[in-house]
Amino acid sequence: MAQKITSREKDYSQWYVDIVLRAELADYAPVKGCMVIRPRGYALWEAMKSVLDEMFKESGHQNAYFPMLIPEGFIRKEAEHVEGFAPELAVVTHAGGEVLEEPLVLRPTSETIIWSMYKKWIKSYRDLPILINQWANVIRWEKRTRLFLRTTEFLWQEGHTAHETESEARAETLRMLEIYKTFVEEYLAIPVLVGRKSEREKFAGAVSTYTIEAMMQDRKALQAGTSHFLGQNFAKAFDVAYQSREGALESVWATSWGVSTRLVGALIMAHSDDRGLVVPPRIAPIEAVIVPIYKAETESRVIEFAERVNSSLTGVRVELDRDKQNSPGWRFAEWEMRGVPIRIEIGPRDVESESVVLVRRDTGEKRATPVDGLLGSVTSLLAEIQTGLFDRAAAFRDENTRHLEHYSEVTQFFEGEGGFVRAQWCGREECELQAKRDTKATIRLLENDEPEQGGVCVVCGEASNYRVVFAKAY
Amino acid sequence: MAQKITSREKDYSQWYVDIVLRAELADYAPVKGCMVIRPRGYALWEAMKSVLDEMFKESGHQNAYFPMLIPEGFIRKEAEHVEGFAPELAVVTHAGGEVLEEPLVLRPTSETIIWSMYKKWIKSYRDLPILINQWANVIRWEKRTRLFLRTTEFLWQEGHTAHETESEARAETLRMLEIYKTFVEEYLAIPVLVGRKSEREKFAGAVSTYTIEAMMQDRKALQAGTSHFLGQNFAKAFDVAYQSREGALESVWATSWGVSTRLVGALIMAHSDDRGLVVPPRIAPIEAVIVPIYKAETESRVIEFAERVNSSLTGVRVELDRDKQNSPGWRFAEWEMRGVPIRIEIGPRDVESESVVLVRRDTGEKRATPVDGLLGSVTSLLAEIQTGLFDRAAAFRDENTRHLEHYSEVTQFFEGEGGFVRAQWCGREECELQAKRDTKATIRLLENDEPEQGGVCVVCGEASNYRVVFAKAY
Repeated sequence: MAQKITSREKDYSQWYVDIVLRAELADYAPVKGCMVIRPRGYALWEAMKSVLDEMFKESGHQNAYFPMLIPEGFIRKEAEHVEGFAPELAVVTHAGGEVLEEPLVLRPTSETIIWSMYKKWIKSYRDLPILINQWANVIRWEKRTRLFLRTTEFLWQEGHTAHETESEARAETLRMLEIYKTFVEEYLAIPVLVGRKSEREKFAGAVSTYTIEAMMQDRKALQAGTSHFLGQNFAKAFDVAYQSREGALESVWATSWGVSTRLVGALIMAHSDDRGLVVPPRIAPIEAVIVPIYKAETESRVIEFAERVNSSLTGVRVELDRDKQNSPGWRFAEWEMRGVPIRIEIGPRDVESESVVLVRRDTGEKRATPVDGLLGSVTSLLAEIQTGLFDRAAAFRDENTRHLEHYSEVTQFFEGEGGFVRAQWCGREECELQAKRDTKATIRLLENDEPEQGGVCVVCGEASNYRVVFAKAY
Repeated sequence: MAQKITSREKDYSQWYVDIVLRAELADYAPVKGCMVIRPRGYALWEAMKSVLDEMFKESGHQNAYFPMLIPEGFIRKEAEHVEGFAPELAVVTHAGGEVLEEPLVLRPTSETIIWSMYKKWIKSYRDLPILINQWANVIRWEKRTRLFLRTTEFLWQEGHTAHETESEARAETLRMLEIYKTFVEEYLAIPVLVGRKSEREKFAGAVSTYTIEAMMQDRKALQAGTSHFLGQNFAKAFDVAYQSREGALESVWATSWGVSTRLVGALIMAHSDDRGLVVPPRIAPIEAVIVPIYKAETESRVIEFAERVNSSLTGVRVELDRDKQNSPGWRFAEWEMRGVPIRIEIGPRDVESESVVLVRRDTGEKRATPVDGLLGSVTSLLAEIQTGLFDRAAAFRDENTRHLEHYSEVTQFFEGEGGFVRAQWCGREECELQAKRDTKATIRLLENDEPEQGGVCVVCGEASNYRVVFAKAY
């Protein structure tokens, strides 16, 4: 550790990889496109899981587990689904020393296997709704991969719900989108825009896909979570009908929604700096680290005092650095690399004055703080950091968002530093593709769910129904 | 629900399947040998995970995640490992629409992929020990499968540790075995025997395998968890050496250990009865259910009282049954099927006398109990049930365990109802196989780790070094 990392200015992509590897969040696996999530990276995912899992349960969802092996034929049952996922499938053809009669695919997502089971479980409206979530690994054979952001195997949660009515399923889709927004903004301190995907960008098999989109420090967009209204597509593909309250046989309505270990990548890219990781306190495995600084003659006094501070911070996830090998400077750099929100420095003079120095990881600001009332000081500083990170990210996003009305401005904007462009769009794929060819930016989301009057399409100049956000994206 | 289940006496195997399906713990998946873990079954696994995860972390372990796809060549690097696992491998040969250059196997266990990474991470004694655990799915192509007990895909945790010295690795192996024993006995209320596996039964690639073995209600043994001392086998296969404190280059010492969703099967088979599931309180997602019993004219009074009882039981995982469709009898049977440890019945007379009736799921015993001090009564009854289940299982095991010295007694015992046989064994595979052929029972464990003098082998009559336990097993 304590090796230099590439600066963001010099090479943003390399900066990201340096942080992931040097903060020991993940490592490259022997199989191309796969990664190993190391303990420090997994601790971030665990913290996210734990908060999300509670939010899911509080909103009435239950966890379950469906097999990772799916008969190849299942994927073909929903026409758009197979078109979207076929190119990314990994296929098991041999098992137990024999050739399989029907090949099995490794789940790229679980709609098909889950709806094949819902067919067994759903007979009547009394069996609805089903509100199931699963935490699982999935495999998508990607051509270009990047640690956490796009890997062949990743960890995620996928919710799969079944409902009596269209309106109930639509409400569930938006409710989960809102839960994702709350989680990402309040815990990860990343502001997101919320909206619907264009037809071209929606999930293969969905009627509508809703998304939360965040701006990274290189001004690119990152899709941080999606929630799909699936209509009756999967119910029809798997022949799942229920007897309604009126006695009729009806197709079931569906949603699915997911976030993945990609969120760890988002967290890194949103907040970190050239000294390493920056983790928002609410998701940080360690919120504060106590670093005692001493020479031989002051050691026992300083350590004793540090131990006292350590045990006074009840309720804070605090660690006392007991390293005796390395210099304070090396240890400061190490804890900064790891992104711990507050460093609590304690030297011999602090012992005398019954105080400590609190150092913010995000701003570097130092505050001499009395030990008396320290728990309160630390707790409120953690809250300040949490808010500060969100505000900084929001300000950065807003500074790099333009409302543009002329296509030449759009192309010019994306030739420069880029960012988010708010503009009007007529709704035709032709214009969407034109913009992509000219700028490499795509429509990240439609801000209005329903078409509305007003304005003209920024690409073709014809009447526009949609307010959209363009950006280059991960 | 409320359908009859086959009695244990009539058909033990069918009884087990009936409980799993009718208590909605799991269901058969479309792929042969795979299962779907339904919410009620998953809740049991989640409760187990949560306790174990805390025990692992308290003993200094960290979670991580390694890929499920392993290059086929890796499995071949450790000679015994490939011999053991090759017949059970599932192989990915195609991905992303192309034939793979090297086939990938789905992890049957992760020693090989993990030690390929440890090679990158371990240079010096300063990098040791590594104490990593992962929660993951694994695939083993099994010929005969059984819900929870043996499925093609299952969920588990696998710990993989790396150490400087043999003694440290041996101590870790036994420490984890002890943690498993504590967990299974204190939470699942299943008494276990602890010991070492014979050479024939040990993990493919281990120097020694230690096991915890429980007796099910059909008197068969179930291996509930294993902890392996791997020696330097995987370090040598993957060329993982470290610079020692003395400056020499040495091979790293290893352990691995795991328990799986099989524990859910063990839980069912150890405690449940002909009315359904019986769950020990400490692992029960719901510890007590309040069932109000009323007619139209008493409804509001009874419900109001039940709500009051419900909110008084703080700290207990309690649920109030709000079902208005089904009769009390049907609901009693339903909650019994689901295995909730205590049913709290409340009728109009109980409201008048300010009391409730507590009904134990395990014994059926009913206790009229005043509402005053109810939290204490419920809490102590839960503890009583927990102890009662353990004691009952331990008594059953002890009643069905024989210390035998003559081979004819052994064969006769296993022709009858069977159980556990404590006997002497000379250590030769020949005698082990002879006993298996004659009785279908195998050596479940060696009670003494080191050979010792005394007695004669129950099979061949020659001098015996081991005290062992024979049983038919799952």
